[in-house]
Amino acid sequence: MADEVVLLDSWASPFGMRLRIALAEKGVKYEYKEEDLSNKSPLLLQLNPVHKKIPVLIHNGKPVCESLIAVQYIDEVWNQKSPLLPSDPYQKAQARFWADYVDNKFGDCLRKVFTSKGEEQEAAKKEFIDCLKLLEEQLGDKPYFGGDNLSFVDVALVPLYSLFKAFETFGNLNIGGDHQCPKLIAWAKRCLQRESVFKSMPDQHKFYDLICENRRKRGLDQ
Amino acid sequence: MADEVVLLDSWASPFGMRLRIALAEKGVKYEYKEEDLSNKSPLLLQLNPVHKKIPVLIHNGKPVCESLIAVQYIDEVWNQKSPLLPSDPYQKAQARFWADYVDNKFGDCLRKVFTSKGEEQEAAKKEFIDCLKLLEEQLGDKPYFGGDNLSFVDVALVPLYSLFKAFETFGNLNIGGDHQCPKLIAWAKRCLQRESVFKSMPDQHKFYDLICENRRKRGLDQ
Repeated sequence: MADEVVLLDSWASPFGMRLRIALAEKGVKYEYKEEDLSNKSPLLLQLNPVHKKIPVLIHNGKPVCESLIAVQYIDEVWNQKSPLLPSDPYQKAQARFWADYVDNKFGDCLRKVFTSKGEEQEAAKKEFIDCLKLLEEQLGDKPYFGGDNLSFVDVALVPLYSLFKAFETFGNLNIGGDHQCPKLIAWAKRCLQRESVFKSMPDQHKFYDLICENRRKRGLDQ
Repeated sequence: MADEVVLLDSWASPFGMRLRIALAEKGVKYEYKEEDLSNKSPLLLQLNPVHKKIPVLIHNGKPVCESLIAVQYIDEVWNQKSPLLPSDPYQKAQARFWADYVDNKFGDCLRKVFTSKGEEQEAAKKEFIDCLKLLEEQLGDKPYFGGDNLSFVDVALVPLYSLFKAFETFGNLNIGGDHQCPKLIAWAKRCLQRESVFKSMPDQHKFYDLICENRRKRGLDQ
């Protein structure tokens, strides 16, 4: 039986992008279903009743929720091509540690930058630069976080990082990380040259417009 | 070369307890080092510079941080005995989903119950009971979350659940979950009958005293 793979997703979700990249790296064909997050489908509510969130990967009718768990699932099921996690338990634990860092610390800092203004945003920017510097150090001189090939940590980070760069570029908000993190910039360019990555990313202007709209709704900008 | 295993831990940490249980289940001997959290050791700061938190598992000199990542590491390295995660990718993803739920949603709700009072605590209790009911449903009629044997989700949950029960019992704080979640109570008793679990738990009175002290410091109780 051929695999039936469906992705419930939303175009601007960096978490959904992770799954799109992983599936593309593995060469898995799937049906993409865009969710209206203001009016979630009965299918989404049925398949992710706990969190009611996208992305949900549906593989032969069975749902896998939470993006990093789904990326690991994809890596384990389609294990013949483009391994994302190393097989060595110690290296695997390290990759999980940094993906968790991206999901929690880095993600929280980025959210603060997106949803604050004035002094609060200045503090958020500083904290965010510290995250960038830590990741720059972790990357070192390797092409990707896992070494020579795109890996779990890259898949976790590149959507969030790219959306931040869109926000920074179009919002004319230079947080000053560029000259401090040149390796990270080169890494992002390297990632974005991969078809799996650039085809999984939304139009950056469209994404920037969405962020602006959300900020206006929150009363942060006019 | 014999494995050298050291655990940097703190007696009242439910996250440290997870590692103690996993190591005991696997029959791994290790050196336990109690950390003074108000005066962290240079070793802890050196081995977990990002979060500066216990527990840290040190295996042949190499640190593994974050409790659920360390439990997975233990399961992968000492894989001959008492498997905690199933080998099937789908079941594994489900186990990771529920362990993540325990770590985030359940843990956050529990923290709110521990650190609030009055109306705020009443709201926190209601939310916490919803978590308990969801876990009760997930457990169903199985002896353990993973089936017939202690599994990843059990190891993630039992320390937090037991500390909550100690708080409830000694604090005379019946949140009313008992009659709604009889299977969860039977499950916890089953877990606590295992040597790996009861030997990893702190004295419950001592734990309760610590919670009370923390509440007094926050001005929540007299």
